[in-house]
Amino acid sequence: MGLELYLDLLSQPCRAVYIFAKKNGIPFELRIVDLIKGWSAVAGSQLTTTSASQNLVLCLLFLLGRSALKRCFCPGEPPEEGASLEGRGLHLDGEDLQARARVDEYLAWQHTTLRRSCLRALWHKVMFPVFLGEPVSPQTLAATLAELDVNLQLLEDKFLQNKAFLTGPHISLADLVAITELMHPVGAGCQVFESRPKLATWRQRVEAAVGEDLFREAHEVILKAKDFPPADPTIKQKLMPWVLAMIR
Amino acid sequence: MGLELYLDLLSQPCRAVYIFAKKNGIPFELRIVDLIKGWSAVAGSQLTTTSASQNLVLCLLFLLGRSALKRCFCPGEPPEEGASLEGRGLHLDGEDLQARARVDEYLAWQHTTLRRSCLRALWHKVMFPVFLGEPVSPQTLAATLAELDVNLQLLEDKFLQNKAFLTGPHISLADLVAITELMHPVGAGCQVFESRPKLATWRQRVEAAVGEDLFREAHEVILKAKDFPPADPTIKQKLMPWVLAMIR
Repeated sequence: MGLELYLDLLSQPCRAVYIFAKKNGIPFELRIVDLIKGWSAVAGSQLTTTSASQNLVLCLLFLLGRSALKRCFCPGEPPEEGASLEGRGLHLDGEDLQARARVDEYLAWQHTTLRRSCLRALWHKVMFPVFLGEPVSPQTLAATLAELDVNLQLLEDKFLQNKAFLTGPHISLADLVAITELMHPVGAGCQVFESRPKLATWRQRVEAAVGEDLFREAHEVILKAKDFPPADPTIKQKLMPWVLAMIR
Repeated sequence: MGLELYLDLLSQPCRAVYIFAKKNGIPFELRIVDLIKGWSAVAGSQLTTTSASQNLVLCLLFLLGRSALKRCFCPGEPPEEGASLEGRGLHLDGEDLQARARVDEYLAWQHTTLRRSCLRALWHKVMFPVFLGEPVSPQTLAATLAELDVNLQLLEDKFLQNKAFLTGPHISLADLVAITELMHPVGAGCQVFESRPKLATWRQRVEAAVGEDLFREAHEVILKAKDFPPADPTIKQKLMPWVLAMIR
């Protein structure tokens, strides 16, 4: 049996996995899932306080990433055609420990900072008021957007700095996880790149490295977030505890 | 210049780094820092919404871990005496991708789950009422301890299962990060292991692998958390925004 990926491209880690697998030429069967329906179906279970889906796909991403690298960059074997992000670009291989540590640093940092504020921006700006019909106070939204600003500044000042990519001169897993993250608030209509020329140029570099068609394909769902039809009241009721736990 | 480690053993990631470096025979100069004084000194800065210290030391841990492994397990060179956790035990090397993915899975999972609830248990049970003189309502404390219970159960059911260690038959970085985490609520007087024989036996295995003296040495500070003298009112005032951001 081949690799099956159960993905909902509304989810940031799912988009990262999707782009990674496609770009690396890893054959897989796409099984589209609906996380929102899934959450509402199991609401109330013990898993409500974990971001289980996020972590499962991140794990898969690591596994795929390292397997693919092992396959592509095995010493003595030439990389397969089209089987990597920019040749040796994905710096997770053991030969550059410092670059790998920088990728790990970013991945450890984002969980409680950038990921949190991107998720909150999406839900507070669009998903609560439009999809769930739950008003969000201007104060709450302002606080969420201010926190997002702080984290975007940290991303630029502490990670990107004056480099081409977050961890050095080549694209890495950190860039892929970060760009898919930032498309959450972009999907909500936030001005993420407009007043940040350095981040905007970095986004262009990442899009070019990923490929513009693949990038667009992976982000079609999230870029339509504002147009989601209102949720069914039963789904809304079941969904609320999940969402509140996820974005707290 | 040799390696200098700036650590406060009140901090879980600092304890993990300390144990790792000591156990792996990595020479370093210990620079004791006081995170609480440091937080209060920079309170109000833009960094208040990040868990910067945690991520910096985690990064260091990854870097040390992989460097040490590279040094110890370089193909063709025998491991140095005393230079690893149980011989080849630290499964971060590239030869066992699945074990490494499991370590990564644990590290990705804990940020928003076990780490959050262990931190909150320490602060709600001891640091707020005793150190800061801020009462915590019984409802808040009960909710925190209930969340800790859920995450302990997930640790046991989803990670430990019936294995000797969290990611397989050998100790790994995941065990080291987890045990130092659980010692936070233990330091606060929570009954973490008492009604959980599987986790208690796992703790014994981890302690034995680390070495009981080193384990005790690393946890002396946290195990005295209940006896910290009350904070100075000025420090308390400056500390509060940091702490609230950290444990939210």
